[in-house]
Amino acid sequence: MSYLADKILQEGLILPNNVLKIDSFLNQQIDPTVMKAIEEEFYAYFQNHGISKVLTIEASGIAPAIMVAAHFDVPMLFAKKALPSTLQKDAYYQTQVHSYTKNTTYQVLVSKQYLSPADQVLIIDDFLANGDAAMGLVDLVAQAGATVAGVGICVEKSFQPGRERLERAGLDVYASVRIAAIDSERQTISFAPGH
Amino acid sequence: MSYLADKILQEGLILPNNVLKIDSFLNQQIDPTVMKAIEEEFYAYFQNHGISKVLTIEASGIAPAIMVAAHFDVPMLFAKKALPSTLQKDAYYQTQVHSYTKNTTYQVLVSKQYLSPADQVLIIDDFLANGDAAMGLVDLVAQAGATVAGVGICVEKSFQPGRERLERAGLDVYASVRIAAIDSERQTISFAPGH
Repeated sequence: MSYLADKILQEGLILPNNVLKIDSFLNQQIDPTVMKAIEEEFYAYFQNHGISKVLTIEASGIAPAIMVAAHFDVPMLFAKKALPSTLQKDAYYQTQVHSYTKNTTYQVLVSKQYLSPADQVLIIDDFLANGDAAMGLVDLVAQAGATVAGVGICVEKSFQPGRERLERAGLDVYASVRIAAIDSERQTISFAPGH
Repeated sequence: MSYLADKILQEGLILPNNVLKIDSFLNQQIDPTVMKAIEEEFYAYFQNHGISKVLTIEASGIAPAIMVAAHFDVPMLFAKKALPSTLQKDAYYQTQVHSYTKNTTYQVLVSKQYLSPADQVLIIDDFLANGDAAMGLVDLVAQAGATVAGVGICVEKSFQPGRERLERAGLDVYASVRIAAIDSERQTISFAPGH
């Protein structure tokens, strides 16, 4: 079992409605050993994909993304969440992302100057559930005419449709941990095989 | 001259009103070589300060903070910006921070469970200008009864009062780059000596 899966079993909090809270090592406090394990894993899997840039979305994607980018020795770029009113439309690629956990839709944007058609982009995020954030990042890459070289996820909720949506779009997805089921009543987590 | 100072001269954009924009390697796109240089520098300076935790504030502090935390092999914690309405008051240490660039005041919070009186906290941020964000983080550490072991800043605007406020509070501040002056008209930047 990976170090991250082990941490989830040891420290993850299972809240009502099958919500998994892993604030103590991934989402607010961040364990450097988890980060180092993930950067090694993602590098091993994506090293021959010609990665030229790592892209994530603020805020909790930033830590794994910069660690992975440092390992690949390529720049990391993070998409910002903004209200539509603050947009300078011509300077940014922008798309809309719906957050189910926060029940809100927000604009996500990156400066046009940091994505170019030559880029082979590795998208990194902490969680993959419905896949809206990841698909939003895929859209930003497409707007730039760049290529998504892969999607690296720390924790995938395999019982939600994100993975299938990304794979249906032809993307190569690697998840460090795949959660098959969360049972709030029994306080159990089960993992899916593979990555 | 440090790698970061060099990047500022090469790629920094000087906007009207002496605003320095360094989005291409520190604030939106992040250069891994800048991060590696900073983590080495901060480690060299703070290695005997008994650091047990690195604290920053979302979003652009997260990348340098996790790189530094990984070097020290201690957890990194980031304070979240939130509107007062979303607060669960008893679970968080909270304080108010005024942003001059965005002309707004927001709540900053960290879960109480991740800061304890035994912690020796290294505060990291990308910029130090008026010092409001850093002083907010200092306040969160004080609320927890923990100790601020030092403040590590990527880019200090030495012509603004942040440094003096932190030092007056008895804090050990190290800045990778100290900017003495920005001249929008002449498009020049000058650096202050020391760190």
